[in-house]
Amino acid sequence: MVKVGFIGLGLMGKPMARNILKKGFSLAVYNRSRAPVEELASMGAAPCSSPAEVAQRSEVLITMLPDEPQVAEVLTGVFEGMRSGLVLVDMSTVSPMFSRQMAAAARSRGGDMLDAPVSGSTMAAEQGNLTIMVGGSRKTFEETLPVLQAMGKNIFYMGESGAGSFAKLCNQIAVAVNLLGVCEMLLLASKAGLNLSQVVEVVSTGAGGSWQLANLGPRMISRDFNPGFKVKHLRKDLRIIREISEKLGLPLQAVALVSELIKALDEKGHGEEGTQALIKLVETLASHQISNA
Amino acid sequence: MVKVGFIGLGLMGKPMARNILKKGFSLAVYNRSRAPVEELASMGAAPCSSPAEVAQRSEVLITMLPDEPQVAEVLTGVFEGMRSGLVLVDMSTVSPMFSRQMAAAARSRGGDMLDAPVSGSTMAAEQGNLTIMVGGSRKTFEETLPVLQAMGKNIFYMGESGAGSFAKLCNQIAVAVNLLGVCEMLLLASKAGLNLSQVVEVVSTGAGGSWQLANLGPRMISRDFNPGFKVKHLRKDLRIIREISEKLGLPLQAVALVSELIKALDEKGHGEEGTQALIKLVETLASHQISNA
Repeated sequence: MVKVGFIGLGLMGKPMARNILKKGFSLAVYNRSRAPVEELASMGAAPCSSPAEVAQRSEVLITMLPDEPQVAEVLTGVFEGMRSGLVLVDMSTVSPMFSRQMAAAARSRGGDMLDAPVSGSTMAAEQGNLTIMVGGSRKTFEETLPVLQAMGKNIFYMGESGAGSFAKLCNQIAVAVNLLGVCEMLLLASKAGLNLSQVVEVVSTGAGGSWQLANLGPRMISRDFNPGFKVKHLRKDLRIIREISEKLGLPLQAVALVSELIKALDEKGHGEEGTQALIKLVETLASHQISNA
Repeated sequence: MVKVGFIGLGLMGKPMARNILKKGFSLAVYNRSRAPVEELASMGAAPCSSPAEVAQRSEVLITMLPDEPQVAEVLTGVFEGMRSGLVLVDMSTVSPMFSRQMAAAARSRGGDMLDAPVSGSTMAAEQGNLTIMVGGSRKTFEETLPVLQAMGKNIFYMGESGAGSFAKLCNQIAVAVNLLGVCEMLLLASKAGLNLSQVVEVVSTGAGGSWQLANLGPRMISRDFNPGFKVKHLRKDLRIIREISEKLGLPLQAVALVSELIKALDEKGHGEEGTQALIKLVETLASHQISNA
């Protein structure tokens, strides 16, 4: 069985790494803060003290990091310890251009790289049924598939380098716009005196149904702002989408609106909360807090 | 079995009336244009020449009409032929205030009225599994339930008069905002050179999934603009939502954006097409027509 490395043991990365261990892969791990490294080590992972060390101990090396600067920094270390044939799998959400640059750098060092960002909640990460969108060489994708299958259920090969990242950004457009739709819907429903839980149930059965509604609607109603996906990370994804749409000359009006609102929410200090906290900003604008009649 | 009347045999009304007949109810029908009346008559319905005649022959009278003026006009006729105890069921999408006015008028004439708008496509109407959101007296709702069950699968009692209409407007917020999200997502995906059908499949499995994406995304890609739900009707629903949000003092930014775009689409002559035609406007703004790589 292929030797796996994992760098970035956060909200998503830790349960993903755990699932790789559970499938019987040998796993070398590194994280900037040590607590999750110790936790994975207690389950049988080899703790490493640098990205270079993970690279030396891996044939497939996964990165799951917040943003491009962290990926670039980690990969600088990885490239130091890298042997020919190492396959990097970056599961972070980054721009497709960045994915292509990093893949070119990996190839120039005798390795290869896939961009393989994921969609789904921390619960999906824990249950190993994430959606994974993969860009890169099809051959490398097929060779790496058993490792990806430890983490995800719906795994799609989207095309050459960058195609996985592009698909993830498309996904985030739907995520963010639907999220705002849920907020505005609950606001009207609350002002109308409807039972909000029932509205979520009703709308979910019909043409207004969405993952965002079914999963985050109930949390907005119960004021549960624990992060499945953090506001600051959605802000970052929307920033990347807007940079790309600017480069491509695409006017994305709904994206522009929701990204300004998410930015405002982050600036108000809600960056560490789940994206369902967008309801708070919509409530502030309306001077009305939703409540379940 | 209760005697049923049906006025408004359009894209949705005709299959709904057909399902009532199929369940064995006697049915009296009226429509401004005669072709659907003849069609229902050939299946066993009693053709009527006026709303008043339908009222005389019914215990439960359903209206399924485009907008408030048509409902008001039809109900004027209905009130002429109305006997005490007649239950009106308006399944049109109208404002909650209008629903309450009409219900009060029906009650003052010894009858009752439910607002019971539906969600779902023409296919759901044909298959009898519409979502139905009902406002009015709970007793009248329970008495009328067998008739509603001939048309819908998910039937919800939402509260007093107007609550059904409010719930439907909430539903339309989710419908319209998600629809715009699908358009912007497909635009970026197309510019990125991704396979659009695959993007719809991928995003549908994860946190960006929605009814709008799964059902209208494929039609946008195949350029099928046949109406399941017409642009002109969504425009009307959004107008009502904006009037209500103005009255209630609610700033609904995503609703404002999508309603301006739907209005522009209608003004460009696409009112009779399905709402998936919104992609055309988004394409025009971006000077890029989506295509399936």
